[in-house]
Amino acid sequence: MSSFSYRREFFVEWGHCDPAGIVFNSRFFEFFDWNTWLLFEAALGVRPGDLARTFGIMGIPLVDAKGRFLKPAKFNDLAEIVSEVAEFRRSSFEVRHRIAIGGETAVEGSETRVWAARDADDPTKLKGIPIPAAVIDRFR
Amino acid sequence: MSSFSYRREFFVEWGHCDPAGIVFNSRFFEFFDWNTWLLFEAALGVRPGDLARTFGIMGIPLVDAKGRFLKPAKFNDLAEIVSEVAEFRRSSFEVRHRIAIGGETAVEGSETRVWAARDADDPTKLKGIPIPAAVIDRFR
Amino acid sequence: MSSFSYRREFFVEWGHCDPAGIVFNSRFFEFFDWNTWLLFEAALGVRPGDLARTFGIMGIPLVDAKGRFLKPAKFNDLAEIVSEVAEFRRSSFEVRHRIAIGGETAVEGSETRVWAARDADDPTKLKGIPIPAAVIDRFR
Amino acid sequence: MSSFSYRREFFVEWGHCDPAGIVFNSRFFEFFDWNTWLLFEAALGVRPGDLARTFGIMGIPLVDAKGRFLKPAKFNDLAEIVSEVAEFRRSSFEVRHRIAIGGETAVEGSETRVWAARDADDPTKLKGIPIPAAVIDRFR
Repeated sequence: MSSFSYRREFFVEWGHCDPAGIVFNSRFFEFFDWNTWLLFEAALGVRPGDLARTFGIMGIPLVDAKGRFLKPAKFNDLAEIVSEVAEFRRSSFEVRHRIAIGGETAVEGSETRVWAARDADDPTKLKGIPIPAAVIDRFR
Repeated sequence: MSSFSYRREFFVEWGHCDPAGIVFNSRFFEFFDWNTWLLFEAALGVRPGDLARTFGIMGIPLVDAKGRFLKPAKFNDLAEIVSEVAEFRRSSFEVRHRIAIGGETAVEGSETRVWAARDADDPTKLKGIPIPAAVIDRFR
Repeated sequence: MSSFSYRREFFVEWGHCDPAGIVFNSRFFEFFDWNTWLLFEAALGVRPGDLARTFGIMGIPLVDAKGRFLKPAKFNDLAEIVSEVAEFRRSSFEVRHRIAIGGETAVEGSETRVWAARDADDPTKLKGIPIPAAVIDRFR
Repeated sequence: MSSFSYRREFFVEWGHCDPAGIVFNSRFFEFFDWNTWLLFEAALGVRPGDLARTFGIMGIPLVDAKGRFLKPAKFNDLAEIVSEVAEFRRSSFEVRHRIAIGGETAVEGSETRVWAARDADDPTKLKGIPIPAAVIDRFR
């Protein structure tokens, strides 16, 4: 388990919520996505828009996402999201997200992403390439 | 495994897609959610807006959602989504979703939802109650 | 006023609605956008994803959007959207949208879009170019 | 013209952007909506979730929204949004929004909203009621 994490607070907006008055589930996956970008910016010192170019990749596409919704998040709630890379594998990695409200976990999530370059055999596709050790080191 | 499933086709819209030209992941969870409503409508003959009232529940809140993104879905792709209840438990159930493009699976997902009524001990909360056998029967 | 219009029905989804139980305003602009694509497909016989390539343009970017919200659209409502090009100008055009529920107008909207090619002086930018008469003719 | 305004900076997220790499138009209406809530919080000292209860209203529903998109906002851009009430009328008001990127106006927008209570004649509906002078004073 890496020890580098990124933490951010935000308020639950009116437009995030559904007729039950709580955050609609797809929004949590937006929150996860954006916090992964911010986690990488914090660890690597590279702004989200420069990540691909800086490391010679096409991007970090998502191949798996999960959310467990333990407590509802309501309009106006102050939410804290904490994200970290739970595991680096050869060419993919898993980001863990935890959203808490009032100190209690409301949502636990994870994303599996690939460190991806253009596939030399088929330039319309992406394929995973080894994650540089220098990148992994920044998350320790 | 239940055998009742709901199938629908839709086109990937411009607004569903991200700068990589493919569907942004949170949109798939919107597609899952809506297809669960339509699955229940097809099985039970009750429109989404009447589901809670008809069965004396507050709703079918989501407690877990997962997506595996196997192939990208692009602007203008014709997508087919097929959903079914994979398992009914006492007061919760799991919906499985499969989105295919051109006959190939692009996304696999699942949702765990609760058959929920107001909690008598705390009316601000919901709690799972037994799913009626008559409901479960309609999915066979 | 052109006479060609595109009409479509859809149901208001749970995820479209806010804590007041009605469609959150930004969703209407998604509905407008998608119906403009479908209007062009219906008039020109070209799928949305092929529009730019077929006509040698970069796209039809939006420069102005408006919505008037006359009646709320609620979860489960059956909505009818009708869209047409209200005016073609030299290199831009105005699309009018009307969303009705139960036969009554719920939302009126408009979009101004540009028929845009890459700017020869600055390839990172787009600029309007004359809309072909053959395109305009298809909307009569 | 009131002189009280609310200003906030935010980054354009990956999930805000479309295949052209720029913010999809519906997102701007989300930004407008949330900044109106924050403007009212800043002026009145009442959190968004407490606004209705504090002033004995049902809410501030939107009846008209407009956006002019002058320059594209791209992934990773630092955006500044400034919002103010351009006019208070008897029971409605107009909020003006300006989003700038790098000091240049990218989007201009406006919202017309109603200071709304439940309609005594039809409790399923809302109707505008006079905006208290004490509210209006806080925006001067």
